[in-house]
Amino acid sequence: MLRKNRLFTPGPTPILPAAQTAMASYAMHHRTADFRALFSRVLADMKDFIGTKSDVLVLASSGTGVMEGSVSNLTSFGDKVLVLTAGKFGERWRDLGKAFGCAVEVVSAPYGETFSLEEVRHKLTPDVRAVFVQATESSTGARHDVKGIADLTRKTEALLVVDAITGLGTTQLDVDGWGVDVIIGGSQKALMIPPGLAYCAISERAWKRMESAKSPRYYFDFRRERKAAAKGESAYTPATSLFAALGAALDFVRQMGDGDLVAGRDALIANAELAAEMTRAGAQALGLKLFAPSCPAAALTAIQSPTGIDSGAIVKQFRESFGAVVANGQGEMKGQLFRIAHLGYYDYLDTIGILAALEHVLASVTGKPVTYGTAVRAAQEAYAGARYQAAATGTRAM
Amino acid sequence: MLRKNRLFTPGPTPILPAAQTAMASYAMHHRTADFRALFSRVLADMKDFIGTKSDVLVLASSGTGVMEGSVSNLTSFGDKVLVLTAGKFGERWRDLGKAFGCAVEVVSAPYGETFSLEEVRHKLTPDVRAVFVQATESSTGARHDVKGIADLTRKTEALLVVDAITGLGTTQLDVDGWGVDVIIGGSQKALMIPPGLAYCAISERAWKRMESAKSPRYYFDFRRERKAAAKGESAYTPATSLFAALGAALDFVRQMGDGDLVAGRDALIANAELAAEMTRAGAQALGLKLFAPSCPAAALTAIQSPTGIDSGAIVKQFRESFGAVVANGQGEMKGQLFRIAHLGYYDYLDTIGILAALEHVLASVTGKPVTYGTAVRAAQEAYAGARYQAAATGTRAM
Repeated sequence: MLRKNRLFTPGPTPILPAAQTAMASYAMHHRTADFRALFSRVLADMKDFIGTKSDVLVLASSGTGVMEGSVSNLTSFGDKVLVLTAGKFGERWRDLGKAFGCAVEVVSAPYGETFSLEEVRHKLTPDVRAVFVQATESSTGARHDVKGIADLTRKTEALLVVDAITGLGTTQLDVDGWGVDVIIGGSQKALMIPPGLAYCAISERAWKRMESAKSPRYYFDFRRERKAAAKGESAYTPATSLFAALGAALDFVRQMGDGDLVAGRDALIANAELAAEMTRAGAQALGLKLFAPSCPAAALTAIQSPTGIDSGAIVKQFRESFGAVVANGQGEMKGQLFRIAHLGYYDYLDTIGILAALEHVLASVTGKPVTYGTAVRAAQEAYAGARYQAAATGTRAM
Repeated sequence: MLRKNRLFTPGPTPILPAAQTAMASYAMHHRTADFRALFSRVLADMKDFIGTKSDVLVLASSGTGVMEGSVSNLTSFGDKVLVLTAGKFGERWRDLGKAFGCAVEVVSAPYGETFSLEEVRHKLTPDVRAVFVQATESSTGARHDVKGIADLTRKTEALLVVDAITGLGTTQLDVDGWGVDVIIGGSQKALMIPPGLAYCAISERAWKRMESAKSPRYYFDFRRERKAAAKGESAYTPATSLFAALGAALDFVRQMGDGDLVAGRDALIANAELAAEMTRAGAQALGLKLFAPSCPAAALTAIQSPTGIDSGAIVKQFRESFGAVVANGQGEMKGQLFRIAHLGYYDYLDTIGILAALEHVLASVTGKPVTYGTAVRAAQEAYAGARYQAAATGTRAM
């Protein structure tokens, strides 16, 4: 059959058609009233998308750039910082802290698991200046307990910095209520546009820290960006076409909420949660094991490869037979698991389709028969159950 | 009359239609064979575009990001560096050096002028670790003598770093022959695509310096990017849609050279040189003064506002009457000059059109009569002269 190219990777994700059009037709200079209007509208909308009253910055870089900025703007050489890591992105926090000369303490958990809050509490000594963590660890499909961690940091001098690059738009995060000081996202995730923009929201206590933090920074100087943003501009040339795409994506999210961006964001989160639930049900019905069963994220589902099968063969078969790009494990996890994304622009047909394809792929790579429809039926039951429950509780049915 | 929106700003510049289409239709994951092929092809083509055999990096950021990387990868805290500045972008080098704790020595020239090579030689003491300069200073329209500066640095331990963000594709630069160690460009300039990518070529002696340079860096860690690029990848998520646009733009430049990218790049430079020559002739025929008469760049022409006229009124009139966005002066130069760009996707009709519009704008803001056709005729004469000369010398006529 014809094979459409489809991304099921946890970033880049499928691009919203309205964003593609906006991006292609946009050609505005960035120091004009028209662009300032777009820029200011996007920044205001991003507050609703993130769920914060704090100032938001959107920069031209990948998410790693704003992760670096969160280290360089908030620390000085020699500062003690606490990194919570249970995957490749947690390890990036550790490496960033070291690159800027911080004394990095680590709380780690095995890949696919999350942290003991007791251990976090134990290592959160009064000299810790900042705590760095992921909301969802994209390399393992695990969700971390941001609220539980914030309950510990809020009472201390330590700032809490959360990489929610795959968490925003897939997980309910009460950024201001919990006391998250910096929360970070990326354009190519739940926001349904290409990579090239990263964003963050910054609490007043984090802005205050920047006054004394001494690590060198220039391109990612958050205070300079905030000053420019107050005038509807960015400090350096913004990625204008991606801003136009972001504006279109936020309009789409608003439409999902019948004109209310916050409601639309909640609907987008519920959409990812349901797609994840369907996928977990489907995979488990086929006898497959989840990689992060105790704390699965809604952004993506990481599924263990059957014993003796390199997950690379599964990834390859998905691509060759169905044009579907799913993600392999990263680093040491390569070959052990494959990852199917739910964040952003995925619907029922996408979710059912990839599970049906999984049945064929599994039969092919294991050489064992599969009862076709097993994963699909389990996913349908999860879908029908969620609709039934929404109707019973009067909440919005996805 | 109908007013089409047209950018005559020295970045962002008008976007190549083929790049817009490529950008809109591209949706490939960055860890796939398809993207690796695009990535590697673009990096190889960029060597020809820049005119170097050195390794090239293309990163997701504005040009300022790679300027920062050139400081952080090549210096250590306390290093003495020499900044040559005659405009807003030269001042950015100074600020970047200070941000990373370098001991910054400065050779400056008034806005609109260039440096005394004698003064550069004088300040280029043996302890200078790097020299930072612009090829063309976009804020004043001045061209600096990169070859003359390289002749001084090549014999010393000092690395030469050239911000050619508006210089590449508008100026002949013999990067390897002269001994330029780092040369920097941006996507939204002569390359005719939106902002969001910055690039650089790095000499072996600069790669070597990075082994001992200690300034903190992570997102702009050039050595990590080089290692990833050898495998057809970027260290962090690349701005995929802009890469697709860049591939299309490089194909267009190759077509300009009848299949030869270097010849196409030379044609693009000659195109900017001719548009600049036409614009200078037109402006001067109207009695206007150039802002950088002794060393005008081909990337843009900066024209002084007539005595008593705020150049903001000229910029406004261009926009309101003709939909044409020209640039005002920056910082202290605001109100004193306006800037018309020639870098990238401009042709004869664009150049003649903006000069004809200038005649109406000038009549309107000064309230004095203008003999219509004065600037246009001077530009036509410059064009005809250039064609005649090209025919006489057997070089490619633009």
